[in-house]
Amino acid sequence: MGKNLVDGGIIMKNEVLSVIKERRSIRRFKPDPVPEEILNTLLEAACAAPSAGNVQPWLFYRVHRAEIKEALAKAALGQKFVAQAPVVIVVCADLNRASATYGERGRTLYCLQDTAAAITNLMLAATSLGLGTCWVGAFDEGAVSHVLELPPHIRPVAMIPLGYPAHSPSPTARRSLSEVVKVVD
Amino acid sequence: MGKNLVDGGIIMKNEVLSVIKERRSIRRFKPDPVPEEILNTLLEAACAAPSAGNVQPWLFYRVHRAEIKEALAKAALGQKFVAQAPVVIVVCADLNRASATYGERGRTLYCLQDTAAAITNLMLAATSLGLGTCWVGAFDEGAVSHVLELPPHIRPVAMIPLGYPAHSPSPTARRSLSEVVKVVD
Repeated sequence: MGKNLVDGGIIMKNEVLSVIKERRSIRRFKPDPVPEEILNTLLEAACAAPSAGNVQPWLFYRVHRAEIKEALAKAALGQKFVAQAPVVIVVCADLNRASATYGERGRTLYCLQDTAAAITNLMLAATSLGLGTCWVGAFDEGAVSHVLELPPHIRPVAMIPLGYPAHSPSPTARRSLSEVVKVVD
Repeated sequence: MGKNLVDGGIIMKNEVLSVIKERRSIRRFKPDPVPEEILNTLLEAACAAPSAGNVQPWLFYRVHRAEIKEALAKAALGQKFVAQAPVVIVVCADLNRASATYGERGRTLYCLQDTAAAITNLMLAATSLGLGTCWVGAFDEGAVSHVLELPPHIRPVAMIPLGYPAHSPSPTARRSLSEVVKVVD
């Protein structure tokens, strides 16, 4: 953890910066199962995310059963790789919990940000342990709710297929800082 | 980066897991400025986040000017610590970019998740370099748009005061995994 990390104008690289840079969207997985202990470590990392008012509006479905993963892949507009991952984490937002404290802003903004922060923690923790993930956002929410028998106040916001990577995708392009940063000084 | 990280049932801790666990919401900052190079490293970490269709709907206002920080603190319902940070990053979502590819779902879900993933990367990178951040979500969006003269399609979604921490808050409580994880096997 960082003290004096700028030395002669050069920032010493650390593992966090490397993992952030090396994370990829993984869509092919080895069949090896993910040990229970690693799954718990990843979910604990997810839960360490900040949330508005520490409400923690998240709920995680850890799906291992083949026919449920198949149904999730179908709900994800036929993205078959979803079913091929040894585990799929379906991340949900509890709209009751989110809106109890913050009303409309809790339901339509904070709980989406809080769950996204949890997902990001989970993905970086997974990368750091040699695992691969992919953020799947394109799916029929009603179909996912039906498959997992979710009550109406539990909204599925992402599916994260998870496993040991069977490919090494190249990095995707990024907009330059000059395009996306405005300095007000 | 992880190979054979489970040894005899014990997961070897790594810096990513530690930083995820050690991140705190920092609301008091030393006056020391944040070097330009570190700011760029943090913003590059933010930009390395995944986004739906790699649209990268984010825009970052790096605010240093005192009177603008004061106006942001006022827009944040009087949270004065916002103005006391040496830098405030106002994170915005470009609604045009978000909805061009994905319509309503892009505008109301993906761009909020994508910017939240970018913020999480930025916060973890900051923690790893000894800096402190706080996710500020409670603000009057219209007031922030007015202060920064944002066009209508640029929505401010969070403010991140940033600087060297002047306090060490205790960790906040978390719900147990048994409360927030459902296993489907």
